[in-house]
Amino acid sequence: MSQARRLHDCQVTIIGLGLMGSSLASALRGQCRAVVGVTRRAETAHAAQSQALVDEATTDLAAGLRQADIAILATPVRVILDQLATIGPLLPPGCLLMDLGSTKAQVVAAMSELPGHVQPLGGHPMCGKEISGLEAADPDLYRGCTFILSPLPRTSPEALDLAQELVEATGAHALVLEAERQDFLVATLSHLPYLLACSLVATADTTTSADPAAWKIVAGGFRDTSRVSGSDVTMMLDILLTNRDEILASCSAFQAQFSRLLQLLEQGDEAALRQALRTLRDKRREMFP
Amino acid sequence: MSQARRLHDCQVTIIGLGLMGSSLASALRGQCRAVVGVTRRAETAHAAQSQALVDEATTDLAAGLRQADIAILATPVRVILDQLATIGPLLPPGCLLMDLGSTKAQVVAAMSELPGHVQPLGGHPMCGKEISGLEAADPDLYRGCTFILSPLPRTSPEALDLAQELVEATGAHALVLEAERQDFLVATLSHLPYLLACSLVATADTTTSADPAAWKIVAGGFRDTSRVSGSDVTMMLDILLTNRDEILASCSAFQAQFSRLLQLLEQGDEAALRQALRTLRDKRREMFP
Repeated sequence: MSQARRLHDCQVTIIGLGLMGSSLASALRGQCRAVVGVTRRAETAHAAQSQALVDEATTDLAAGLRQADIAILATPVRVILDQLATIGPLLPPGCLLMDLGSTKAQVVAAMSELPGHVQPLGGHPMCGKEISGLEAADPDLYRGCTFILSPLPRTSPEALDLAQELVEATGAHALVLEAERQDFLVATLSHLPYLLACSLVATADTTTSADPAAWKIVAGGFRDTSRVSGSDVTMMLDILLTNRDEILASCSAFQAQFSRLLQLLEQGDEAALRQALRTLRDKRREMFP
Repeated sequence: MSQARRLHDCQVTIIGLGLMGSSLASALRGQCRAVVGVTRRAETAHAAQSQALVDEATTDLAAGLRQADIAILATPVRVILDQLATIGPLLPPGCLLMDLGSTKAQVVAAMSELPGHVQPLGGHPMCGKEISGLEAADPDLYRGCTFILSPLPRTSPEALDLAQELVEATGAHALVLEAERQDFLVATLSHLPYLLACSLVATADTTTSADPAAWKIVAGGFRDTSRVSGSDVTMMLDILLTNRDEILASCSAFQAQFSRLLQLLEQGDEAALRQALRTLRDKRREMFP
């Protein structure tokens, strides 16, 4: 970027108008020169425009990017990886190119191959919903969440500043974090909970669901613990497959902790079990005061 | 019970004024002749009275039970088991004796040893909070929840009717369920989620908590999946130890389901993984439409 740009002078082009992209668009409208949405389907482009989520929408990627100062890939991670392989020539010189994918190491590696006139920056807003698509668009979705930014060695300080301004405009808090470190952390803090939730639903399905009473006694504990299993499957599949090693390591750490608790229960070691449960209760309270 | 009694004519004595007992007391006040609270500590009795949660409170069990038409044990499960061994002679003839413990087989077995002048009935309201004690008392805690009733062969239809009237007076829905069947179901639907939540917190504690960034990116998924690990430890320990076999069987079913998902991920079997995640997402939506 030749000189420092401010958000209000920028055209922001968002590629993909699912939950994340359309919510971002509606959060940014009015805070920048223009918000342009690019979608595959003409009906989605039409809906985004008629719901005033964007200033303009198109199915033509090249046209949508022509005047872009900031371009944001809001698609599943493996679609982002594909798009990164071809988008470079379509971006104007100095354009800031971000993404919203939940895993960062592979994305940032692909970004490092972009032509030199582009300013790439990995992004991961830690928010979401169990409903997907444009219909679920919510201008407040990003408010209060942590928005991870993973810069590359080539990312200029001005590009990072502009991204931080964009993050703040959505009501989120920017957190600069290297891609590998973010992937390690979210494996345990986000992807492991998803697999636990899915496996819990699978367990209930095989053990209790044959009993009609089960449906009446499924209580708040089960509802909360299983909630994220309702997440968008394509999004989650891409996350799992692009952060596989970190996730498998985290799952293995979980299995060890779970087995340890079960062993105490099996042995009836009441004192040790009480101590372990107390410590974990206190740690949870420390995490969420 | 010699003749059908109605709730509004009854004195209800609640033994134990923690979260569950004090919330029940405040929900029932004004809907019966009197609500009497029995606590171990004089300060708790005093607080219950000054906060108008009960009509009367005492630390004297015999005095609290003397005029009771309904007595309710609102203590941790193993305290209930101890109390059942000695409470019989203190109960007036025809008195309905219930409990609020989360496991039922051992409670109902102990109830079967009560003297013949008592009408025993197992109870388990499927509600709670992650804060305990009288300070957390909430007259709406039971509203909308399922309240399991586990009758004994000796429980009279009139006693069961009276209990159902009491349940409805709290805003809960009564569900009659044999003790063993309830213990089997709650092992998966309630106790397994607790152990998963605890083990998830333990995993984060050993893998990510050394990184200060972890505290900033702990997002909604982790919060929800780990929520029940904040439950009262004494209550949960009693539940785990009095439903151990069912819980261990359910945990073992969980481990098989979890391993199956991990195997698909490890093998990169995308089609099978996508199918599994889709099926589980749909099942979760079926459970909580």
